[in-house]
Amino acid sequence: MGYDSVSRVKSRVFKFVDESYGRYVDILGELVSFKSVAAWKSEELGECARYVADLLKERGFRVSLKSAGGPPVVLAELGSGSRTILMYNHYDVQPPDPLELWESDPFRVTARDGLLFGRGVADNKGNIAARLGAVDSLADYLEELDLRVKFFIEGEEEVGSPTLLDVVRDSLDWVKADGGIWETGYVRRDGSLGISLGFKGMLYVEIVLKGPSRDVHSGTAPLVPNPVWRLAKLLVNLKTEDGFVKIPGFYDGVSEEFLRDAEELIKKLSYEELEELKSELGLKEFVRGLTGEEALRELYTKPSLNASGVYAGYTGRGSKTIVPSLAGVKIDIRPVPGQKPEKILENLKRYLSETGFSDAEVVVHSMYPSGYTKPGEPIVRASVEAAREVYGRDPELAPLSGGSGPIYIFTDIARIPMTGAGVGYYGSRVHAPNENIRVRDFVLGMKHVALTLLNFSRLSASSPK
Amino acid sequence: MGYDSVSRVKSRVFKFVDESYGRYVDILGELVSFKSVAAWKSEELGECARYVADLLKERGFRVSLKSAGGPPVVLAELGSGSRTILMYNHYDVQPPDPLELWESDPFRVTARDGLLFGRGVADNKGNIAARLGAVDSLADYLEELDLRVKFFIEGEEEVGSPTLLDVVRDSLDWVKADGGIWETGYVRRDGSLGISLGFKGMLYVEIVLKGPSRDVHSGTAPLVPNPVWRLAKLLVNLKTEDGFVKIPGFYDGVSEEFLRDAEELIKKLSYEELEELKSELGLKEFVRGLTGEEALRELYTKPSLNASGVYAGYTGRGSKTIVPSLAGVKIDIRPVPGQKPEKILENLKRYLSETGFSDAEVVVHSMYPSGYTKPGEPIVRASVEAAREVYGRDPELAPLSGGSGPIYIFTDIARIPMTGAGVGYYGSRVHAPNENIRVRDFVLGMKHVALTLLNFSRLSASSPK
Repeated sequence: MGYDSVSRVKSRVFKFVDESYGRYVDILGELVSFKSVAAWKSEELGECARYVADLLKERGFRVSLKSAGGPPVVLAELGSGSRTILMYNHYDVQPPDPLELWESDPFRVTARDGLLFGRGVADNKGNIAARLGAVDSLADYLEELDLRVKFFIEGEEEVGSPTLLDVVRDSLDWVKADGGIWETGYVRRDGSLGISLGFKGMLYVEIVLKGPSRDVHSGTAPLVPNPVWRLAKLLVNLKTEDGFVKIPGFYDGVSEEFLRDAEELIKKLSYEELEELKSELGLKEFVRGLTGEEALRELYTKPSLNASGVYAGYTGRGSKTIVPSLAGVKIDIRPVPGQKPEKILENLKRYLSETGFSDAEVVVHSMYPSGYTKPGEPIVRASVEAAREVYGRDPELAPLSGGSGPIYIFTDIARIPMTGAGVGYYGSRVHAPNENIRVRDFVLGMKHVALTLLNFSRLSASSPK
Repeated sequence: MGYDSVSRVKSRVFKFVDESYGRYVDILGELVSFKSVAAWKSEELGECARYVADLLKERGFRVSLKSAGGPPVVLAELGSGSRTILMYNHYDVQPPDPLELWESDPFRVTARDGLLFGRGVADNKGNIAARLGAVDSLADYLEELDLRVKFFIEGEEEVGSPTLLDVVRDSLDWVKADGGIWETGYVRRDGSLGISLGFKGMLYVEIVLKGPSRDVHSGTAPLVPNPVWRLAKLLVNLKTEDGFVKIPGFYDGVSEEFLRDAEELIKKLSYEELEELKSELGLKEFVRGLTGEEALRELYTKPSLNASGVYAGYTGRGSKTIVPSLAGVKIDIRPVPGQKPEKILENLKRYLSETGFSDAEVVVHSMYPSGYTKPGEPIVRASVEAAREVYGRDPELAPLSGGSGPIYIFTDIARIPMTGAGVGYYGSRVHAPNENIRVRDFVLGMKHVALTLLNFSRLSASSPK
């Protein structure tokens, strides 16, 4: 396809999206009306999967539903070109709680002041609808572009995708693609699209220490050992006063290649958004007073260890006097590329043992490694160029999200380089009440995906294989 | 009254109790049927108070109801002798939760295998009923005994008696008495009656540390300070590894006289019951491996500091990934006689400040000093002698309960020496499902209180004033 043809297709795509985006807002409305809350194991998960499957079938996709014990995964494929792109999404959503804080029905898309409200509009149903629109805008040209488009849409992302690995392994040949688009991307305050080239991994453990066999009246406290004091000691042992993790080897094993790529990207990243986060959270300073490039490096290249929750004894209102039977902490550890969570878990257990806590019970809630894509990959260049054109400025490419996701299943197991795209923005209140997107980001997001597909076909064709 | 008369009264008392205790079990049944749960601020609190008042009026008591904002306190007085004894009780009870663990309706006295089940049968309605029976058994002799009997029955003991001090201060002249009987006493495994000559005080504080202004996704954990680490440090700072409290002055100010009295009592106390507690709780050893007299001394004469609850972030099932906005600990401190809780609070706050926690919020939930009665007081000698006769062995006199109670309002403000008596036993499951008493302890408890009254009048008459 020559430059003229590309230019012609591009203008048709823009025209299509500008004229037709309302139809995809309607589809988003249908999607949001399903209470497909993964945590509820709702029957509407299956109904939503079938609705998505029908939408794809209507467009000529070859569709199958796969399951490895969880809600069905929708696998759909259109076109027969030699270049394949795979889009990952999920039709499940977080619970809407606390309901009383919503200003409209979470399961009904409500438009107000250029915004669309509803559970899942940003995470992730809005992206499903926009990507359908993007594919529709290109449908007539797929053959000409020599492109094959796949959707992989799962239904338990919000509970940690427990069976995703099994589904991908079972369908590994089908899943393979030359490039992929991850579930989201968010428009930043400066109007640029934020794209993360990877996600940290996750090692979520709960560490429990035991005291008396039952909660006992704290009149006995002079004699009965209270597990709270040992838990406090255990926690103090995990980090230095400066916040460095003391588990031996915790910072080891990070991929040198990743660090080199990350350094290049960090030089171009803006620190401003983090400064705004700091002030929004009412913080005088970040850990160790980090700012600028140092803060970006900490956030995007270092493994982290955080206490998400601590509990012991009576935690209700007012007072109750007991020596608690248990004291526990929920810890999320986020490894970075190159690190093996199994190794970190082993080191953690050995460290606990060596510091006097061999009796600590360590329950693993989830464990997976990090995954990332090199910034020079054709799919990344395709999305960056598309973003520059659609959003009018360079996207912010982060080496990793600060958050975690099992992207390694695609990047490392199916070996698909992945990029980001998305219709949400910095104010989308993902996972919270009044989740929303801006209508204009929905339109831009649709164009961005369409152009990414277009660029990927063209760029791929001109890149060495 | 000569020895012969005392002996004659005593045998009439025993006969009366043996023939009539069933009537008082019926009264207990009526009392238990009121859902007088203080924590519920139930209307049945007032109804129960009026029922108790009516029971007393029927017996010729001069009754008034007083309130300082809480449920009414029943003040009742019978006789006009020169020696006055005051019995403290409460008609409110703990909530029955968890309901599903009860084997019968908690608000209906149910007899099974010589036991009476129901919320409040031990704490404290059973004692109200038994003491009514004791007074009835002596009613004809009060004038002869030169005795005046008072009941002080409050309705918010189970929520910490927040207005008790005000009621006593408002009625101080009425409250005054030559001796008093505290709410409970429990029969021990060896068949002896356990009497505590005092209670520790209470300083219940909640210490809260703040992090970000809201819970925030822990993807930001590399940068956002998490208050959990500081709470752990704060807790570790409060105690040595051996469990000694590090707050300066924490062990200071204990009454020398109390310590001397306590040492005498500790020599006669058995450690066995504590050994049983240790094994029941599945503990290998007590704090610092304490046993025997050392363990008794720690429990009965030392102030304690305990963490009743700790909380931060997500404490539900499974996983959630946040940097918590708050981390808090609920701490109960129990001062012993001579110690001022205000001073301990001041020292705690200064210590927090000096150790880097000047930003810690310290909320005081309750604060009152310890109170105790010297073992040589006539009322104590009266109850000890009565216990020896009724239970067939010396009672176990503990210098203090390990627990707390605002007994100082009676011992220190109204200046009434107090002793213990009660119908419960070691298996009474106070505050728990299936609260129960043994019918035989109900009978013995009734006799014990009657004999205590009888002894107090006689002993008082023969003691120098």
